[in-house]
Amino acid sequence: MSGGLLYLGGGTALQQACGFEDSAEEMFKYLIASCGDSPDEAKMRLYCEHSVSHYDWIVAQGVPFKEVFYYGCSGEPPNEDGLVWSGSERSHPFCDLAVPAPRGHVPAMKHQAGPLLMQKLCAAVDASPARVAANHRCVALVQQPDGHVVGAIAESFGERRALRAKRGVILTTGGFINNDQMIAAHQPLVRKCVFRVGAEGDDGSGIRLGIGAGAATLHMDAASISLPATQPWGLKAGILVNAQGQRFINEDAYYGRLGEWSLFHQGGRAWLVVDDEVFEKPEYPREIAAVADTLPELERELGLPGGTLEATVGVYNRHAEKAEDPLFHKNRDYLKPLSNPPFAAFDCTSESSLYAAFTLGGLSTDVDGRVLDPEGRPIEGLFAAGRATSGLSVGSYSSGLSLGDGTFFGRLAGRCAAA
Amino acid sequence: MSGGLLYLGGGTALQQACGFEDSAEEMFKYLIASCGDSPDEAKMRLYCEHSVSHYDWIVAQGVPFKEVFYYGCSGEPPNEDGLVWSGSERSHPFCDLAVPAPRGHVPAMKHQAGPLLMQKLCAAVDASPARVAANHRCVALVQQPDGHVVGAIAESFGERRALRAKRGVILTTGGFINNDQMIAAHQPLVRKCVFRVGAEGDDGSGIRLGIGAGAATLHMDAASISLPATQPWGLKAGILVNAQGQRFINEDAYYGRLGEWSLFHQGGRAWLVVDDEVFEKPEYPREIAAVADTLPELERELGLPGGTLEATVGVYNRHAEKAEDPLFHKNRDYLKPLSNPPFAAFDCTSESSLYAAFTLGGLSTDVDGRVLDPEGRPIEGLFAAGRATSGLSVGSYSSGLSLGDGTFFGRLAGRCAAA
Repeated sequence: MSGGLLYLGGGTALQQACGFEDSAEEMFKYLIASCGDSPDEAKMRLYCEHSVSHYDWIVAQGVPFKEVFYYGCSGEPPNEDGLVWSGSERSHPFCDLAVPAPRGHVPAMKHQAGPLLMQKLCAAVDASPARVAANHRCVALVQQPDGHVVGAIAESFGERRALRAKRGVILTTGGFINNDQMIAAHQPLVRKCVFRVGAEGDDGSGIRLGIGAGAATLHMDAASISLPATQPWGLKAGILVNAQGQRFINEDAYYGRLGEWSLFHQGGRAWLVVDDEVFEKPEYPREIAAVADTLPELERELGLPGGTLEATVGVYNRHAEKAEDPLFHKNRDYLKPLSNPPFAAFDCTSESSLYAAFTLGGLSTDVDGRVLDPEGRPIEGLFAAGRATSGLSVGSYSSGLSLGDGTFFGRLAGRCAAA
Repeated sequence: MSGGLLYLGGGTALQQACGFEDSAEEMFKYLIASCGDSPDEAKMRLYCEHSVSHYDWIVAQGVPFKEVFYYGCSGEPPNEDGLVWSGSERSHPFCDLAVPAPRGHVPAMKHQAGPLLMQKLCAAVDASPARVAANHRCVALVQQPDGHVVGAIAESFGERRALRAKRGVILTTGGFINNDQMIAAHQPLVRKCVFRVGAEGDDGSGIRLGIGAGAATLHMDAASISLPATQPWGLKAGILVNAQGQRFINEDAYYGRLGEWSLFHQGGRAWLVVDDEVFEKPEYPREIAAVADTLPELERELGLPGGTLEATVGVYNRHAEKAEDPLFHKNRDYLKPLSNPPFAAFDCTSESSLYAAFTLGGLSTDVDGRVLDPEGRPIEGLFAAGRATSGLSVGSYSSGLSLGDGTFFGRLAGRCAAA
């Protein structure tokens, strides 16, 4: 399923080869501002400081990156690879808070770079002394009376095996997007999203095992919601309106931010309004909800309250003529009055549009992957990494943070457990 | 601290005495629609079905209620008592989903009915065989290797006591509004609220003890945020606008709903705009952010983007003239064009206004107060009630649900533990 994109920066070899300057500090400034309301600062700082060497390590595992910068798309480049923009770095408010740099690193493989990344990392494991037991499902942790985790019970084809952990157990089972009960309890609005980004194993099992052992969880309500409404980028010159015909975000924000704002603040009620000049064929097929020669007509066709869309476009155009957007500060590259009929509205509602969702919350861990209890004390012998934990992003997602987070803090957890 | 208000209904003796019809079914319809995106249906149904007898039980403990219906204020009546509206029953969308009835039951005591309620309930405990150990702080639960909770460790004046629980431990320690670390982790936006509704003990200790014992939590991100911007009710004829000069809610909604929408969806940026006809002295003192003879002037004074407030009022007035509000469906009682200068804006931002906050999430429990693990299985011997649990309301709060919830499910937990 994965596109293989890693969010890395601070001046990686790929960034340099593509002619971009970046620093750990600017990367940190962007991430701390953009990853939700209460990100883990310690994790973020460490991640930024060691991002360059983490990239080198990934390359050293045999993962190839073509030295190409691919402009004009968000997230995974279609049939391409190399370096891409994969966040909201260049849009308000982040462009004023940190020097923007593209940080989406995509391994060199057409179509799906994720399988290649996994293949290379799995090959590195095969070449190590580590033993892999596939087809084993962990059904319980074994805890000493003092709470120390000393092993796990695994099921394989109906048989149970008790596995003693000499140094520790590391839970790396992913998030819980495919656990309907957990989604209903923690992420009710996500039920509106048809497309759930995750493998079968994203059933929250690791999170639940950790909770059973006394772990605290963080941000179980946080999700990444991608709404690729503005692909190709020319569509950013349109305006996203809600059920009241109001704008609610700068349309040039990354699609991981557009989706969250649309779902969590507008209940998944959104339309992208364009004029004839902005109109072009969208990359992700979507229905055209209405076409009309005038805005009042378009408004009626969409079922919006009388006068709302007209008022919204009136205010928008008044400022766009001066290449300004005092409401949401969209970049001037995408600011021009919407005044060339016919007008059209793309359906961006959660019922009819792609809202790609996965969960961001999970076990509370420290930078070394130690799973923490509600007092912030490590549960001895228990570690976790990746989407089974609450990681770098707890909102307003930039693509590549999950693979980045999982590989980086997975390595640290492994090191700490082995020590 | 408590105002003593209990959210009860279904046709209580007080409702009947005041001439209101109600049924468990209508009460259920309102609560299930209004209490957040994923309320606990089983708890809600039981609560509604036994609300009348719970009221009788409260009265039987010696808590007096004056048979008076007090109209014209939200939540706790000033220097009054009896029956009040304490939710959004009569506002959109709830008025169309359930037959409205006032369900705020306030014990008969001037100023603060909460202490009276506690005094009566404590007296009932004193008259029972129960022993009370005050000045004891529970610092740990005692669990058998199989997870069964068999006691607690309590500290009193520096000494530790181990208490064996013959039948069970019930955690009733309240929420976590006064735990800064938990608020930062789970409720970052609540840090903007100056007024935190809670006693010193609302430090999340019971929730943390439960997590340590392997309990699951629910809705740790949910909070009740009261913004009494529309008191007296005449102010509901004003409009609440955000930093983009846009309306975002029907202003006649209950203040527990206004606060949540303002804080969680508008980041605490809100102003109540009125004209000279609507203007009156607010009950909760608040600053007047701007006064002006024209809307463009008011807009400028507030620092809103040019044309936004004018456009918003234009659309609002156009419909208000017909006593309609197709955007947010405010009740026609509060719909009239804002057209009599001077215009004024009350400051309803979180920096300058009263946002009264407390937490709603906590331990996952069943209807009998049994604390549940992440698989939904009870942790033997462990119970919880009140704000230490995730209760009836997980959003869009109606006043009186905390005392209602706490007393009702507290009784059930006690019964279940004793059995």
